[in-house]
Amino acid sequence: MAKTDWKAEAKTLKKKLNKAKARLDTAPVATTAKVKTVSPLAPKNGFPALPDIAGVEFAAVEAGVRYAGRTDVTLIRLAGGTAVAGVFTRSSTRSASVLDCQAKLKVDVPRGAGAAILVNSGNSNAFTGRAGVRSVEAVTGAVASAMDLPQSRVFSSSTGVIGEPLPHDRIVAKVNDLVTGLDPRGIEMAARAIMTTDTFPKGASAIVQGEGGEIRIAGIAKGSGMIAPDMATMLVYIFTDAKIAPARLQAMLSRQVDNTFNAITVDSDTSTSDSLILAATGKSAAAEVKAGPVAAAFEAALKGVMLDLAQQVVKDGEGATKFVEVRVTRAATPEDAHRVAMAIANSPLVKTAIAGEDPNWGRIVMAVGKSGAAADRDKLKISLGDMVLAEKGWRSPSYSEEDAAAYMKRDELVLTVDLGMGRAARTVWTCDLTHRYIDINADYRS
Amino acid sequence: MAKTDWKAEAKTLKKKLNKAKARLDTAPVATTAKVKTVSPLAPKNGFPALPDIAGVEFAAVEAGVRYAGRTDVTLIRLAGGTAVAGVFTRSSTRSASVLDCQAKLKVDVPRGAGAAILVNSGNSNAFTGRAGVRSVEAVTGAVASAMDLPQSRVFSSSTGVIGEPLPHDRIVAKVNDLVTGLDPRGIEMAARAIMTTDTFPKGASAIVQGEGGEIRIAGIAKGSGMIAPDMATMLVYIFTDAKIAPARLQAMLSRQVDNTFNAITVDSDTSTSDSLILAATGKSAAAEVKAGPVAAAFEAALKGVMLDLAQQVVKDGEGATKFVEVRVTRAATPEDAHRVAMAIANSPLVKTAIAGEDPNWGRIVMAVGKSGAAADRDKLKISLGDMVLAEKGWRSPSYSEEDAAAYMKRDELVLTVDLGMGRAARTVWTCDLTHRYIDINADYRS
Repeated sequence: MAKTDWKAEAKTLKKKLNKAKARLDTAPVATTAKVKTVSPLAPKNGFPALPDIAGVEFAAVEAGVRYAGRTDVTLIRLAGGTAVAGVFTRSSTRSASVLDCQAKLKVDVPRGAGAAILVNSGNSNAFTGRAGVRSVEAVTGAVASAMDLPQSRVFSSSTGVIGEPLPHDRIVAKVNDLVTGLDPRGIEMAARAIMTTDTFPKGASAIVQGEGGEIRIAGIAKGSGMIAPDMATMLVYIFTDAKIAPARLQAMLSRQVDNTFNAITVDSDTSTSDSLILAATGKSAAAEVKAGPVAAAFEAALKGVMLDLAQQVVKDGEGATKFVEVRVTRAATPEDAHRVAMAIANSPLVKTAIAGEDPNWGRIVMAVGKSGAAADRDKLKISLGDMVLAEKGWRSPSYSEEDAAAYMKRDELVLTVDLGMGRAARTVWTCDLTHRYIDINADYRS
Repeated sequence: MAKTDWKAEAKTLKKKLNKAKARLDTAPVATTAKVKTVSPLAPKNGFPALPDIAGVEFAAVEAGVRYAGRTDVTLIRLAGGTAVAGVFTRSSTRSASVLDCQAKLKVDVPRGAGAAILVNSGNSNAFTGRAGVRSVEAVTGAVASAMDLPQSRVFSSSTGVIGEPLPHDRIVAKVNDLVTGLDPRGIEMAARAIMTTDTFPKGASAIVQGEGGEIRIAGIAKGSGMIAPDMATMLVYIFTDAKIAPARLQAMLSRQVDNTFNAITVDSDTSTSDSLILAATGKSAAAEVKAGPVAAAFEAALKGVMLDLAQQVVKDGEGATKFVEVRVTRAATPEDAHRVAMAIANSPLVKTAIAGEDPNWGRIVMAVGKSGAAADRDKLKISLGDMVLAEKGWRSPSYSEEDAAAYMKRDELVLTVDLGMGRAARTVWTCDLTHRYIDINADYRS
């Protein structure tokens, strides 16, 4: 064995070490937080305990729609007599399953028929032409046949990559397994199975005192996660054991969606697949919900569940680190209030300032100005929490940069814009715009 | 001297080297390009040679409005007989100087009077209440007095931080130096002095053959840069030696702004200070521009200069690495064409896909769907350059992921959406959404 020349070896190592040090010196500074498994805004106590809703059962299986090794198809069985209501994306390029749900909800069905909802992730079946319609026919037909339901009572949702044919045979092949696996206590499993790149499962519930018994409401949602990655799609399913006429249920849902799911925004983009289905099984011991105080209490509880789920969707917005409530008050009209609120909530400059914990109220002034709503510089008042930042056309005399900067460090912020023009108000919820949003969305589809 | 134990030394070095290697392995991956002094989309040959415009002189000084060590106040003198036209931000919270310019442009002035434009950076004098109005009075009054002009012919622009009182005394103190320094060849100096965090000065020009002589047009612009950082403000000044009536000049400007400066977007946010002033000195030997072929040629050349400057503003958009032309054709109405084009150009999901060089046409389908414009999935055709990506409600049979991905690597992209609904068209220009945009805008104001 040749004798080692330790001096030469030391010299070589020294050179290598210097090179490595030089590379370390020029290595990029971390500009993005490490990929987190769970949003920093997720509920601290995990998935909530949800009450079982009599007449609702859940199952989930792995069908390999796009990826292996995860549950990607969910079946929900709704007992005979269930009333179903729904609201859907207004996109003019909405998916085949959305169009199918909308058509089915217009059909009058015998009160006694049950219903089912089938959800797949991995493929949105959007922009898939006539083949997309055939896929919806295939999966809803298979469920109808396996469960002995009219096909007009089988609803479906798809979320995932768009423009790719849905491999519906893989789903159809699993329908019997799904039916066999139905479980009345499976709501959390369903909340997990509909997730795409959501970082936590989303659930919310309420119990209302009806006449002769309690009425339960429980809902699940998936939000701004992505598959592929592709569009963020919101899917929401809410269940109640209330006895209620379908038309009344639909009316309540349509009324409450405006101040809940239509009052949130992550990035101003609208999915082709957003769907919310509300099902009332009628299995509660309470009397039928008609007009009156019980109906009002039920609608308020329903709104609470919807708002909770909607806010969880924002808190799981792509890259979100801050949850922001934007309150607009004293606008000239409701339309103006909405325009100002959304102009602020969607402004990239406002959202990046929030990410940077910068109380940059000038950008809020800018967003008010660009909204197109009636505004008067000298009547505008902008507040952060309880602190007035600007009023009477000028920075507020009570403004403290230090206090404002400290407030911006919170996880949850309230921005209030008092327009001083009229009596209309609007509150919306959004999140900040961070590097992580770019990371998630600028990666080439894998 | 103690004998070196090279073996021990080598061991120590080896350990250090391994540690350094381990640190290198866990060093963050570069997610942002290094801060570049100049946008990758800047003109390759630097600032263009611009023709002198007879009757226009420029000066710039350091007044320390906010920062020391840079020119921050610019004065432009316009000879007697100059016609002035302007277009301004539609923001309802526009700045004091914008409101002042708009008021002054409504005043009829004797044809013989000259005019001046004073521009400061560092402070936008927006949302500064009555003090803001007094600042505009002070600076335009000082210029009027030093140059013996009616105050109604002294226009001003301010760009920079908002909500801070403009230290107008510092500007007023420099007016005499500015007047002394006026230089007919100073346009490039002015283009540089109005820059904020623009990464390159922007200029464009044209020469038109008039009756009896040539007519020259030269313009400068500043774009989506920031001070403080605060809002991106666009300021544009265009000069010509044409003889032309003010009303005709204004009409041409108003007509051409729609397809130039109103057809660009960086991030959908609108500044409170955007201003475009067009001045015609009448010093050309050519006959007055009235109706007819010379007027048409002049207007076309003016549009060319405006479009060139507008596109340079996009190419210097915050964090831009790609310049994107969005063409919408065969829309039902011009409003629909504009809505679709802007929905695509402002979509964070489309813009991040472009940053990631991902030919993700599904996001374009989404943007069409959310725009609210009349669209039919089966009539929609989406192209990238000459490649058809999607048509007839489905991915195009000729689609090649490889070719599309190769195309996405270009600096300049053309996206075309053929709606197949009617005869209206609209082209707009935008840039991608990158980490650098977040870096620039999420930093705490320093």
